[in-house]
Parts: sequence; C-alpha cells; structure tokens
Amino acid sequence: MPSKNRKISDLGEKKLIKRLLEKSQKYPFKSIFFDTLSFKSRSDDAAILNFGKNYLAATTDLLIQSTHFPRQMTPRQMGKKIVTVNVSDLAAMGAESLGFIVALALPPDLMLSEFDEILEGILEACENYQMALIGGDTNESTELALYGTCLGIVAKDKVMMKSGSQVGDVIAVTGPLGLAAAGFEILSAEKLKLKNINHNFKELALKHALEPKAQLEKGISCSKTGAVTSATDITDGLLSELEELIQANQTNIGMIIYEDKIPIPDEIFELASKIGKDPLEMALSYGEDFEILLTIKKDKFHEIKDKISLYELGYVTSSGHIQMIDKEEKTDILIPKGYEHFKKNDKF
Amino acid sequence: MPSKNRKISDLGEKKLIKRLLEKSQKYPFKSIFFDTLSFKSRSDDAAILNFGKNYLAATTDLLIQSTHFPRQMTPRQMGKKIVTVNVSDLAAMGAESLGFIVALALPPDLMLSEFDEILEGILEACENYQMALIGGDTNESTELALYGTCLGIVAKDKVMMKSGSQVGDVIAVTGPLGLAAAGFEILSAEKLKLKNINHNFKELALKHALEPKAQLEKGISCSKTGAVTSATDITDGLLSELEELIQANQTNIGMIIYEDKIPIPDEIFELASKIGKDPLEMALSYGEDFEILLTIKKDKFHEIKDKISLYELGYVTSSGHIQMIDKEEKTDILIPKGYEHFKKNDKF
Repeated sequence: MPSKNRKISDLGEKKLIKRLLEKSQKYPFKSIFFDTLSFKSRSDDAAILNFGKNYLAATTDLLIQSTHFPRQMTPRQMGKKIVTVNVSDLAAMGAESLGFIVALALPPDLMLSEFDEILEGILEACENYQMALIGGDTNESTELALYGTCLGIVAKDKVMMKSGSQVGDVIAVTGPLGLAAAGFEILSAEKLKLKNINHNFKELALKHALEPKAQLEKGISCSKTGAVTSATDITDGLLSELEELIQANQTNIGMIIYEDKIPIPDEIFELASKIGKDPLEMALSYGEDFEILLTIKKDKFHEIKDKISLYELGYVTSSGHIQMIDKEEKTDILIPKGYEHFKKNDKF
Repeated sequence: MPSKNRKISDLGEKKLIKRLLEKSQKYPFKSIFFDTLSFKSRSDDAAILNFGKNYLAATTDLLIQSTHFPRQMTPRQMGKKIVTVNVSDLAAMGAESLGFIVALALPPDLMLSEFDEILEGILEACENYQMALIGGDTNESTELALYGTCLGIVAKDKVMMKSGSQVGDVIAVTGPLGLAAAGFEILSAEKLKLKNINHNFKELALKHALEPKAQLEKGISCSKTGAVTSATDITDGLLSELEELIQANQTNIGMIIYEDKIPIPDEIFELASKIGKDPLEMALSYGEDFEILLTIKKDKFHEIKDKISLYELGYVTSSGHIQMIDKEEKTDILIPKGYEHFKKNDKF
C-alpha cells in the first residue's frame, strides 16, 4: 500500500515509536550541558542525560480511560497507576525516583470528588516510591487521560539498559507472571465460572490488575550488584519484552526459556481451565505484570539470588530466536504477541 | 453546594491546580539527592530541582485536539506547538532547553502521513530551540492529544520566578500583544469583513495563532541581567498573568499599567472595529501570545531595554489590585478574565 494511504493502525505502536526515534536521529543534540545521547538510550525505558557520575533518567507515560482503565478501576487506582507505570520504567534501569509531574486531561463533568481521589492516588503512590509531586497541570478533554513524567537518578556504572545481554547470561524475572492477566480475566468473566476460585487468589489477582506496583526497590538492588547485563519492565508480556532485549542488542543473540521454570501461580492454571484460557499465554503475552526482566552474568547469579528473590527462566543464546523448552523437553520457537495498541486484529 | 455534588467545572482550572498543589504539600520530599522543594517553585511555570550551581527545570504541557487545535491548524503546526508551549514555560524562568519527551495519544484511523507531519513539526521545533527529542511514546485514544515534557537548566542566581516583584519595579513585556487573538478572530470571521485588512498583517496574525514561538532567547537574556524580579509567560492573557504575579507574591503588591503603553499593533484596532470586537480585550484577555511578562528593578530597566527589546507597561504598586490608567488618565481596577478551561460560562 502506498505510504500516503496508510493509517497508523497499519503499522502498530512499536513501529510508530521506531519511526519516531529514527526520524529524531537526523537532528543533532547541541546542548553545552550534556553530551550527545546515543540512540541506544533513546530506545530504553527512560531517556538518560549525563549528570556528573550519574545519569538523570526521565520517563513519560500516558494512560487514557478508554484504552487503559477497566470500568472497575477506581479514580484512586487510576492515580496510583499513572505513577506506577512511570516508576516501573525507572525501576527497569535501576534508577531511584526523584520527582513526578502530572498533567490531567479531564472531562468538564468529572465530579470534584473523583478529581480529589485521582490526586490522592497520585500522592499516595509518590509517597510509596519516596518522591515528591513536583508539578501539575489540568486541561479540558472529552476523555479522561493522565500523563505522567518521572525523573530519576542512577549511577553511570550501575545503569541497566536493554542492550547488554551476552550469550550465556541467566534470564530472570523479579516476580510471578500472569497475575495481572488473571485479574483482568476475573473482571470480565461470568460470575458463575469463578464460583470455586479461591477468594484470596481472586483478591490478589484483582489487586495486580487494578493496583499494580512497580518493582523499584528490587530494580535498584539488582542494579547495585553490577552483574545485570540488560533489563526491562514487563508491561507488554514476557515474550514481547524478551524480544525487546534481543532487538536492542547489537549481536545476534537469542533466548531460551524453560516452560516449567516460568513462575505461574497454580491458581492461574485452575482459573484458566475454568474460563477456557491458556495459562501460559496469560503469563507470556498479556503483560501489565510490572515485574522486571533481567539478564545476569552466569557466575554471579546464584550469589545474587540468595539476596534478592529472583526467578530463573533460562539463558541467553546465539540463536536469534526466542525458544521455549516445554515440559516434554521439546523446543519450540516462540513469536511474541504482546499487547500492542492500534493493531487490534493481532490481539488474541 | 456540598463538595460531593460539585463537578470540576464548578471550580475551573486554576483552582484545580491550586487544590492539587496544596494537597501535595502534605507529602514530604525525601530524596537524598535533592533538597526539599519549596511550595513557591511548585506554583511556577516549571518545577525546579537543585542541580549543583544550577536548577534543573522540568515542565509538562498537553494539547488536546478539541480544546487546543483550531480546524485550520496543520499536523506539522500541532507538533511545533506542543514543543513551543513547553519551551515557553522554560523561557519564563530563564532556563536553557535541554531535551524534550513526547507522548502522542492517537486515534487509530489517523493517517500515517499526518503522524509523520506531527513528528516533523516536533523535531523542527526541537531543533529551533536547540534541544534533542530524547524520548517518545504513542498510545491509542479516541481523540488526538499531544503531551510534552521539557527539561531545562538555569543558574540558581539567575532563575526567574513568579514571586519576586517589588513595589516600584517596572512591568514589561517582550513583544506585542493581541496578535494571536487577531489570528484566531481572522480564522473564525466572515471572509467579507476581512476584505480590506492588510494581507501581510493577516499572515502575521495567523502565524502567531497557528505557529507561535516561545521567547527562549529573550527569556535567557533577561535572566542573565540579574535585574528581573519576577516573570511568567503570557499564555492566558496579560491580565491573568499580572494576577499570577500578584498571587505568587508574599506581600500585598498590585500593578499599574498604562493603556497607551500596551503594545497593540495598529492593525488590531482596525481588525477589531471591522469584526466588532474590543481590541483592548484581545490584548489583555485572550492569551496565546507566548511573550514573557517581567518585573524589572527600576534602576536597571533602561540599561536593559537598550540591549533587549522590551515594552514598558507600568510599575508594581502596593494596592493589591491591577489598575489601568486609560487614555483619558482615568484609573480603573481591572479584573482578570483570561481564558480558563472548564469554566465555559465565564469566557467572553
């Protein structure tokens, strides 16, 4: 199709961002205060700027009601989430959070009590992540949207980027996968099908879906070990993020993960069978877990795992693909299909 | 009306932001890297963070299609404008621009060519303001919206804040007022009424409305004089911004401006009479001019004016009000009615 007739939905979000970053390469960076930024840092979770021995990390994220907020999400949870999604990007780079700026796009008939709740959610989350709300703006809009900017700081020799994986590194994740997916499935499932699901599990899954937390402390702890070779946060699903680490790498690396090592809680299998879903897909392709995916030098992994609770998934290869060794020890090549906006037909 | 039944449109944008900033006071700032931020800096155009001898300035602004983009604005102009509105906040503090981050909320049926044009507008503006695009994100939305974050830097002893005006200071502005208003009026006026308006003026006014520029160099030059006591950019109209400087001040200051000193181009009077509008109101209350309003130490003003082209408007008083001395030398008290979102009935 000729370029002039194409819609953005023909490309999808990742290709649009790539297009944006490629075009930005043509424009040089002239500031006398900071050195030139490499392309690498532009494709990472946060932009980084030289700041003495440290990098200043800046990240921005946007949540829009119709796209990101399920009907059951409270205004307070919306406020918390805009902070969490931003902090998660800092966490993935090992950066400490410094300050948060929010811009709210608000429909004029929003209740003042809801505005206050959104704000309290934002402030509560800022406090949890030990930073201040340092600026705010509001604007009239047809649709509720929250736009956050988070500033952080990380030592230059400890920053975690997407690009550094090396063949033989251990692939690990900071927490269980699929809980947010389970929560979203519970929100949309028929009540009858959920009758025998453990109550505490339901609460836990809903909490992960509606009130996710960023792994800020774990991210910082991991970066301080100096043994992490690459990292990113799991917003779009494990497979999609593994692919991100492969794409960011200059060499032809691949990844092998073991199906039986993926940390999927037992209750997710139970839920999946009741509602007719694939539990593996919930863990691999839904996203929204906000855990951190890491590759770690093999000789340091066990020492680190003793201090920081991490789940080992597999190792970095030179295959160029993501492969999974399943429970029957068969090896499959996996194609990422993480959640991507605009390309609706591709979603499962 | 009891709080629980109120809508945000009952308060209006400025009160909402005040509410946001007041609530944020309850939460302390704990970072070990930066000192506590004062409330003062939170009400300024950009948030500022300690950064050695400098402040790091961070500002965020959003533009939403239905609220901010006239039908005649091209995608390239939209891209330029999201950069300009952010840079203007830095300019008002005397900060040099460092880097820009953008998040785009995009309807899925947006043409790829329009996406590219928005992006090129952003990149062209970033280049004009001598900074890099350091990050970008896209999201699906029902309505097109652009969210920008701009980072800047300014020497601590040169930063311009809203709060420092002193009685006797000269009030000045960096450029003519009302041109953007004239442009917006031209866009909506009947063609017949515009028949005899000078073509070059029409072009100039439309350029100010559709492709405004931030006064970054002038802002930096003014701050370097060390004689500016307070400043803000004129986004909401001169009166509204004068009121901002009064409100930000700890003492009971007021402002006197002279009607015949307000820099309104002659063609605006001509246009206003043809379309039945008040030219003074176009200069005082429309906004979108993106000039910088300043108060400057009296004994330094003329020396500065020789180097930086500035328009003197009046002086700071202790009256607590904004007063205007009109062409008949009568003194009126002026009540700001700058453009404010949400409170539609208050708009002229």
